[in-house]
Amino acid sequence: MPAVRRRLGPEERRQQLVQLGVDIIKERPFDRLLVDEVIAAAHISKGLLFHYFPSKRDYQVAVVRAAADELVSLLQPDPSLPVLDQLRHGIDAYISYIEGNPASYNAIVRGAGSDEALLALFEDTRDEIVQLITGEITPDPSPLLRLALRGWIASVEESSFLWLRDHPCSREALIELLFQAALQLLPLVADAADVE
Amino acid sequence: MPAVRRRLGPEERRQQLVQLGVDIIKERPFDRLLVDEVIAAAHISKGLLFHYFPSKRDYQVAVVRAAADELVSLLQPDPSLPVLDQLRHGIDAYISYIEGNPASYNAIVRGAGSDEALLALFEDTRDEIVQLITGEITPDPSPLLRLALRGWIASVEESSFLWLRDHPCSREALIELLFQAALQLLPLVADAADVE
Repeated sequence: MPAVRRRLGPEERRQQLVQLGVDIIKERPFDRLLVDEVIAAAHISKGLLFHYFPSKRDYQVAVVRAAADELVSLLQPDPSLPVLDQLRHGIDAYISYIEGNPASYNAIVRGAGSDEALLALFEDTRDEIVQLITGEITPDPSPLLRLALRGWIASVEESSFLWLRDHPCSREALIELLFQAALQLLPLVADAADVE
Repeated sequence: MPAVRRRLGPEERRQQLVQLGVDIIKERPFDRLLVDEVIAAAHISKGLLFHYFPSKRDYQVAVVRAAADELVSLLQPDPSLPVLDQLRHGIDAYISYIEGNPASYNAIVRGAGSDEALLALFEDTRDEIVQLITGEITPDPSPLLRLALRGWIASVEESSFLWLRDHPCSREALIELLFQAALQLLPLVADAADVE
């Protein structure tokens, strides 16, 4: 019996195409994502892809956005845990994500170049992570706390990236280092607010 | 009297072309650096530019490298100062650089995309900054200390970028926040080395 090709609804098709891209950029920089391999894998024409995404760039941005959403969803804290354990778990999940998806991670945090759509997407992703961290404490973090936490998130990104490359300490020691660095920021932010 | 066009020696010419690019990327993302405007400003032919730089990409990388060298040279500590003051001055100089050269800064720290030559250049630049920080203390920092300091440098980059955008505290308060965060890292690194 010949294989029957399923007809997908528009939203289902869009999601399928984005997911194909998300899987490809787990292995390879997103700017080397080829439209031809996506349409081959989805058994569709180039015209149909461009029906959903007006340009290759729009498609790439949709794929990077979906990868960023995947990361943020993995970082969702478990509200049944004590707040400090939530933070530790978040750091652990972040490292696991980078371990499992090094190319996607690079696409999300380092691949923007000067592309404005991607830079805006990275801004949003980092702000969402700040929101996850502060959500249990305050719905509206001060700009200064946000600055400090975004700095901390950048240090988590960079340290995790180097840890995966060099493994200079155990995973537990890395998590503890990043966790303590976050805790120590809070009084520093309070001091900086006083000086203001 | 007509202007006399100076004949430059090869090294002088190369430097002139790189410096033209460094000045342009102070204002604009380096990937929008146009070869045509460089040759127009230097009054030379495209062929001569490509004599010095085999491709546009080689030229761009040389320009970003020169911009990174400029940053690192501004961060050189003054050995006549106490070590902690050197660190404070370094943070201050870093913020000044970003203030004065926002586009170059973006080129140096955020513009790599997946370009391997640029990614390697960013790695080198960050390692050079680590070396500036640890030079007074140890000629050969442990991989763990390097990891922690590179994380800290990433947080300085991100925090300074947000500070320039949002100004949520005074410049002095920002410097103090980043300075104290660096100091507090050192015992955390020692603890992480113990756990190892």
